[in-house]
Amino acid sequence: MAEFQTVKGMRDFLPNEAILRDKVFEKIKKVFERFGFSPAITPSLEYYEVFANKYGIGEENLKNIYQFEDKSGRKLALRFDQTVPLARLIACNPQLPKPFKRYEISRVWRYEEIKKGRYREFWQCDIDIVGSKSMLADAEVIACAIEAVKELGFKDFVMRINNRKLLSALLKYTKVKTKENDVLRIIDKLDKIGQKGVEKELLELGLKKDEVKMIFDVIMTKGSVKDILNKISFLENYDLGKEGVEELEKLFDYLKDMVEEKYFCIDLSLARGLDYYTSNIFELSVKDKTIGSIAGGGRYDEMIGKFVGGKEQIPAVGIALGIERIIELLKEKENNVANVTKVFVANVSENNRKDSIKIAKTLREKGINTEIDLMERPLSKQLDYANKCKIPFVLIVGDQEVKTGKYKLKDMSKGTEISVNISQLINILLD
Amino acid sequence: MAEFQTVKGMRDFLPNEAILRDKVFEKIKKVFERFGFSPAITPSLEYYEVFANKYGIGEENLKNIYQFEDKSGRKLALRFDQTVPLARLIACNPQLPKPFKRYEISRVWRYEEIKKGRYREFWQCDIDIVGSKSMLADAEVIACAIEAVKELGFKDFVMRINNRKLLSALLKYTKVKTKENDVLRIIDKLDKIGQKGVEKELLELGLKKDEVKMIFDVIMTKGSVKDILNKISFLENYDLGKEGVEELEKLFDYLKDMVEEKYFCIDLSLARGLDYYTSNIFELSVKDKTIGSIAGGGRYDEMIGKFVGGKEQIPAVGIALGIERIIELLKEKENNVANVTKVFVANVSENNRKDSIKIAKTLREKGINTEIDLMERPLSKQLDYANKCKIPFVLIVGDQEVKTGKYKLKDMSKGTEISVNISQLINILLD
Repeated sequence: MAEFQTVKGMRDFLPNEAILRDKVFEKIKKVFERFGFSPAITPSLEYYEVFANKYGIGEENLKNIYQFEDKSGRKLALRFDQTVPLARLIACNPQLPKPFKRYEISRVWRYEEIKKGRYREFWQCDIDIVGSKSMLADAEVIACAIEAVKELGFKDFVMRINNRKLLSALLKYTKVKTKENDVLRIIDKLDKIGQKGVEKELLELGLKKDEVKMIFDVIMTKGSVKDILNKISFLENYDLGKEGVEELEKLFDYLKDMVEEKYFCIDLSLARGLDYYTSNIFELSVKDKTIGSIAGGGRYDEMIGKFVGGKEQIPAVGIALGIERIIELLKEKENNVANVTKVFVANVSENNRKDSIKIAKTLREKGINTEIDLMERPLSKQLDYANKCKIPFVLIVGDQEVKTGKYKLKDMSKGTEISVNISQLINILLD
Repeated sequence: MAEFQTVKGMRDFLPNEAILRDKVFEKIKKVFERFGFSPAITPSLEYYEVFANKYGIGEENLKNIYQFEDKSGRKLALRFDQTVPLARLIACNPQLPKPFKRYEISRVWRYEEIKKGRYREFWQCDIDIVGSKSMLADAEVIACAIEAVKELGFKDFVMRINNRKLLSALLKYTKVKTKENDVLRIIDKLDKIGQKGVEKELLELGLKKDEVKMIFDVIMTKGSVKDILNKISFLENYDLGKEGVEELEKLFDYLKDMVEEKYFCIDLSLARGLDYYTSNIFELSVKDKTIGSIAGGGRYDEMIGKFVGGKEQIPAVGIALGIERIIELLKEKENNVANVTKVFVANVSENNRKDSIKIAKTLREKGINTEIDLMERPLSKQLDYANKCKIPFVLIVGDQEVKTGKYKLKDMSKGTEISVNISQLINILLD
């Protein structure tokens, strides 16, 4: 049965990768919590209708959902994203104080074509603020994502920010008749297919040449936030345009008190693919990388309210870190750690086994990750194992060492060796 | 659509519960890592055959697996446990250095009848050592589980230990002809149905009265490890009995150097339900609690080797913490924390909003979990929110405070209030 494999598009993570993932998740969680986001957990399975209803993930996405009937004939689906389950959670828990700020880092499943860097089981990492209309909430999710990305060691990145209301006003201004979301989905491809590509697709969609030109004149406007908003002030003749400008002004005003200005900018060409955004949208990309954006989100004031029953609006804003991409980038930078162990306590002969056990006990009580020989192997094989597992230190425990209380400590990466007593050993290993 | 609910038998965890779960997992992980167990992650889905093959979870369990066909007709199953996926992982990665020590804390799914405390999605928490035949490996998983349970704050518990080889020898000695596993599964119910109940079921299974009496004479033997092993020395006339006694002697000899003796004992009546155990078995229960065992495991030397292809034996030993039960017990003890936030920085009027933002920024930079008002609410409503969310501290930021640099800090649980400057504030909150 050696032919058993992982399901196509799904991955095992051996310790070297699992340790890195764990570290990344821990760092991100700490930043989320500093901003007052608390964890919430939803099930991996939802009733299919939760995703398939009108305010769920949309027909195109439904094609890629894992769904099946359980034994009692209920139609279930593996979680496609974490936003729709959040809406369901809010619906089930009207008692929750608002704003409700939660993060969730968990698995989602999509039956998609397998490409480099795309998997059928992957992790999402979301923060959302439910119940606040204030631009301060948008500023907070943006600032929080920027801090998380900084914490992970990224330096050269920028959060591009736009507003859907401005884009809607622009399409009104250009008198484009085509469905707004279709136009936005094409503009969203600007990074991938370039201006020429977008122009071509917009023309194919039925837009006129002068309409396309007017769109590009606006979305390619460059300059400071103030400059850009001045240049497009004519859009304020439309209600949505006015709201969009005001929202962006407030947002940037808050943001500059929260994070360094080099980390964010306005970009009127940013469109974002999802239908449900209603106001600010944002996307974080690492410069000089072809890997695309590593965080993205926006405000979606309609979705949850409609999901819950449509009687009241439940405003919300959120951002998701593209955690799989982030981990790919970090893998290039980080040292590969093969396991969590800091020190291997080796016994020279069978006589010293119990001495090793006792020393390991002392070290573990101090919180030091410690291994001993579990294979009853000779010393040379113990060293081989420590070497293969890239354990940083090996302590040698033999009769002489036990007698004198002085032990040889090998630094496995440097190849050096020093003599230590137990308290020196603890200090070195805790360092 | 307000009627949407969680899938039957599955749960949302709002922040109050999610925070406790997170804390429990973090503590357990730290202990596992101190013992040199590294994390490994396997997918939630496996090919159905991984579980359904001869060395998988067994026919009885297969009835309760969530399985379905994906769009290309592959038969998939949601992970039923974490042990079979570990066997598959070992099969896929023969290069892994041995011993391979991994932990995995993740979700599993079982379509079972729903009872109090039983769910269709729940978390398992496993450590296993693969590749070592030494009793030192058994001692290590037992010691590690005991330390984890201690770390969680349990004091009055005991790990009961037995050996399957002894039980096999006992059934040889009593000349019982019935299938061994059927007998063991009944003995395993001793805690639940008592001696009378077990006797009754054994008789119903076809055992003779004197056979049942002989079994009970042995399994109810009380005393120290040495006493008990002496009393049953007649089982050493059988090869398996001899091996069993030797294994237990070695195991207890190692264990007493690793953990306090009050935390473990020998119990010949322990049987464990699973078929695949081959040697030591163990189970940890909290005294004076009706909740049953909160950890259990054993040595299973045959399963992985056969799973991998049967050419070589791959010995393994592991233990699982019954994490859902543990969390139920801790919920009774622990304070209910509604969110992660340590301090809410309240602004007296709109004028002070930016002052609050700046103070929040400073606190967050110090690693303090901080919230500000995101609803543009008056001060009284801000205090209501902090109160509802059980945020321990509220800082009041008004014109006067900003001018003097002295802020009012409310301790929300005590109802007291003190005046602090920013550096005093930081010291108090970091405490």
